[in-house]
Amino acid sequence: MTLKGWSLPLSPGGTAALVPPPPWHFSGEALGIDFHCDPAAAAAALPDHLEPVGDGSASFVFCDWSSSADLDPRLMADPARGQYKEAYVALHARLDGKTVARVPYIWVDNDLSFARGHIQGFPKKFGVISITRAVAVGRGGPRLERGATFAGHVTSLGVRLARGDVTLDAPAEPGFVPKALRLPVWHTRLVPDLAGGEPLVFDLSRNIVSDFAVADVWTGDASLELFESEFEELAALRPLDVVGGFRCSAAFSITGAEIRPA
Amino acid sequence: MTLKGWSLPLSPGGTAALVPPPPWHFSGEALGIDFHCDPAAAAAALPDHLEPVGDGSASFVFCDWSSSADLDPRLMADPARGQYKEAYVALHARLDGKTVARVPYIWVDNDLSFARGHIQGFPKKFGVISITRAVAVGRGGPRLERGATFAGHVTSLGVRLARGDVTLDAPAEPGFVPKALRLPVWHTRLVPDLAGGEPLVFDLSRNIVSDFAVADVWTGDASLELFESEFEELAALRPLDVVGGFRCSAAFSITGAEIRPA
Amino acid sequence: MTLKGWSLPLSPGGTAALVPPPPWHFSGEALGIDFHCDPAAAAAALPDHLEPVGDGSASFVFCDWSSSADLDPRLMADPARGQYKEAYVALHARLDGKTVARVPYIWVDNDLSFARGHIQGFPKKFGVISITRAVAVGRGGPRLERGATFAGHVTSLGVRLARGDVTLDAPAEPGFVPKALRLPVWHTRLVPDLAGGEPLVFDLSRNIVSDFAVADVWTGDASLELFESEFEELAALRPLDVVGGFRCSAAFSITGAEIRPA
Amino acid sequence: MTLKGWSLPLSPGGTAALVPPPPWHFSGEALGIDFHCDPAAAAAALPDHLEPVGDGSASFVFCDWSSSADLDPRLMADPARGQYKEAYVALHARLDGKTVARVPYIWVDNDLSFARGHIQGFPKKFGVISITRAVAVGRGGPRLERGATFAGHVTSLGVRLARGDVTLDAPAEPGFVPKALRLPVWHTRLVPDLAGGEPLVFDLSRNIVSDFAVADVWTGDASLELFESEFEELAALRPLDVVGGFRCSAAFSITGAEIRPA
Repeated sequence: MTLKGWSLPLSPGGTAALVPPPPWHFSGEALGIDFHCDPAAAAAALPDHLEPVGDGSASFVFCDWSSSADLDPRLMADPARGQYKEAYVALHARLDGKTVARVPYIWVDNDLSFARGHIQGFPKKFGVISITRAVAVGRGGPRLERGATFAGHVTSLGVRLARGDVTLDAPAEPGFVPKALRLPVWHTRLVPDLAGGEPLVFDLSRNIVSDFAVADVWTGDASLELFESEFEELAALRPLDVVGGFRCSAAFSITGAEIRPA
Repeated sequence: MTLKGWSLPLSPGGTAALVPPPPWHFSGEALGIDFHCDPAAAAAALPDHLEPVGDGSASFVFCDWSSSADLDPRLMADPARGQYKEAYVALHARLDGKTVARVPYIWVDNDLSFARGHIQGFPKKFGVISITRAVAVGRGGPRLERGATFAGHVTSLGVRLARGDVTLDAPAEPGFVPKALRLPVWHTRLVPDLAGGEPLVFDLSRNIVSDFAVADVWTGDASLELFESEFEELAALRPLDVVGGFRCSAAFSITGAEIRPA
Repeated sequence: MTLKGWSLPLSPGGTAALVPPPPWHFSGEALGIDFHCDPAAAAAALPDHLEPVGDGSASFVFCDWSSSADLDPRLMADPARGQYKEAYVALHARLDGKTVARVPYIWVDNDLSFARGHIQGFPKKFGVISITRAVAVGRGGPRLERGATFAGHVTSLGVRLARGDVTLDAPAEPGFVPKALRLPVWHTRLVPDLAGGEPLVFDLSRNIVSDFAVADVWTGDASLELFESEFEELAALRPLDVVGGFRCSAAFSITGAEIRPA
Repeated sequence: MTLKGWSLPLSPGGTAALVPPPPWHFSGEALGIDFHCDPAAAAAALPDHLEPVGDGSASFVFCDWSSSADLDPRLMADPARGQYKEAYVALHARLDGKTVARVPYIWVDNDLSFARGHIQGFPKKFGVISITRAVAVGRGGPRLERGATFAGHVTSLGVRLARGDVTLDAPAEPGFVPKALRLPVWHTRLVPDLAGGEPLVFDLSRNIVSDFAVADVWTGDASLELFESEFEELAALRPLDVVGGFRCSAAFSITGAEIRPA
């Protein structure tokens, strides 16, 4: 074609496209709460081919991300473009005998991340997300130290959906990586056909991830509340018990995807 | 599949999906400016199969929409869900010997509209859009009357992209429909493949529209400015001359799509 | 002084000031719900000198305003400047043997309105407010007709504070003006002193209002919910019963204020 | 009085007030650009009693703040409450033979900060502010290292007002504190009287600051652009030359104010 762009909008020069091609790089601060929900509710939120782990293991994660792309330096150069916040729930599941994750619901505050997410199968909606930042000096906020509390919450369409916090207890053991960040996530890619046919795209997809890294991992006691909204089914996954929480810096790159039939 | 939803996110009850299936209904207030841009720039922004009209005919439109869906009463019931604002440029073009339109660039402030637009091929990005409302009493804003000025502007990533205004001169002749609203729009549906293959979807699409209606159509003198942004190619379409403007109430329904190879 | 401006910021040319001097004009669409709350809670939310009416009479109002100022044409010319949405609760009270109103809590989405409000004594905070618009054609939203439902909600700091709706039953009698709009409102002007002294300003204030007008007044059945937030005391005023609701166009001008000791 | 609150809104329990009394604590990340503007323009933007330094010395600063208050733990506990971003220009000036600063224009994205600022005399307006965050791991954004570029921009009413960036060259000498952060700032407190009299408050005010600290101070080459807006007079201060820039963590507390006649 004459018009250029890896994604919409296509344009003569190819500079208007919202999403550049991979590789994409992500660095950020993650605040996570591990919990158990009703195992039947967790099982019900899994797609075909993914099997429940049976105990309702799940995590809720708030992230403050910076993102870049090898082929589009504007993402890193303009903070309004590459930076964003998101909040999501991840359910543990089984595929081919291995533990994997499924993110049934996720909210984000940036259109690049929204569109890039849907290309992956992340079922993103817009939300307003607030996450406590760590401070380096002074008393305006908490530092990374024992006893400091970090909170996150997400609101969509004016309704609070989730609120959680983690009170730091101790740095994690060297080499520890929170399960919520290291499990491969299997998404459903789904593109409906306005012309009335079967979905134009419908399969299972897993991002190919490289260069995963974490730093400054702390763990501690945590709390989590999930709330009702008429636009969501998140509250069915509300915590029966909270296992604990973590806060860390994290990074990874996405270079492609592995696809399976849905 | 077990999970339900016409679009992502899929969920056990099917109530989490962002976009319900058509038919969709739209009612709103439109403020439009008809202009001519550089014919070569207009031609360059058209996809294969669409031919330029040759004179750079185009319109810039600001809309304040209410939307609903037959199968999801929540869109009309919650103003945060179904209501949104958008701004777009439409280029006139030729297909099969008839005049059609192409919307190369469009911005919107609502995630339902964003996702519903991409399903149609509307290349939506997020923007902050402001449009003068008509008032019914008092002096807080302009009324629908001769000499009243209505303005619109759109900003994305913190950069103003377009500003226009229309000063009402007279109600339009009965039966007049602004060309910017009545031409069929041919979109490119494009879904890139993160797994590295050819695009998963790549075709031309036109919405099947019914129940089109306008009311309170006024025309008048207009002005329009399009601005540079490093993330856009809109400024290449900046007006060489402005033909005039209109303001009206408008409505239509979308029931499906006609598809062609891209 | 050399620097110019009726309000901050002062500037050499006087064009940077956020709030221009009165007269100010307001035109908009109001959606209101009349209700009774706990009379003791209503009495507790009144300042000295205002006496409770005893039955907990109150109204919750959602407004979509356009505003202008005689001395600053920019307010009407730029929709981002003069237009805004607000939500507030008004308690009925008695002063000098007459029925008046008190607005203990109010939220708004525009900094001009925020600052202009505090100058009047309106205790404004920021909120995200959504209000159903009436449509003129089509089926994208409700029209002004019997059976149509209009809703409003307000969220602040990510927490829903109030949600209400009104289902139109019939146009109001000619001359009818909703009590929530016609009672004089007595505010407390309060400016604390960072230097540690008594408040720099502390008195009771009532806007001098002229040119009040309403149009298209409909009344009907209504519902209202007020919700808990750790940052608010609004929920103490939650409805014990809902009397009914209204929707109308409204307008007025503010030309000055009457002041009394607090 | 019966109602409680250091600021509006007053409420029976005193928990609705937007601004708690000092002491207030601030911790954040600052990105600053030192420049010279037209000396006459700088002089024109100073209030009576402040004398120009004569060479148009000024700084533009973008800050990502966390704030807390000794008497209101909610500010630190809820990230939506205490955290905010701001952007401002500071002019160097002379008072009593000493170098001080004046902040003629400032934008912020949080209502607590807006109201707390006006109490101090900071002439805050609302803006949308983006600032590059430093990352700790990965390639999603820049790290605190030589050659990394950090950018900031601010938009108000949909119009970009300022954009700047700093490319880190080297850590600053121990003990170095950017002048933009250490000069005492003299504000004008101004509260207009809607009743038509002289301003209710009109004086010069300087915050009493304690516990000032900086960390991780880097300096480097910088760029800065200030843009026209019909609502601002910022562009009169646009840089004639840029001296350099800095990025650091910073903290301080505000315990009160020193007042002088205006």
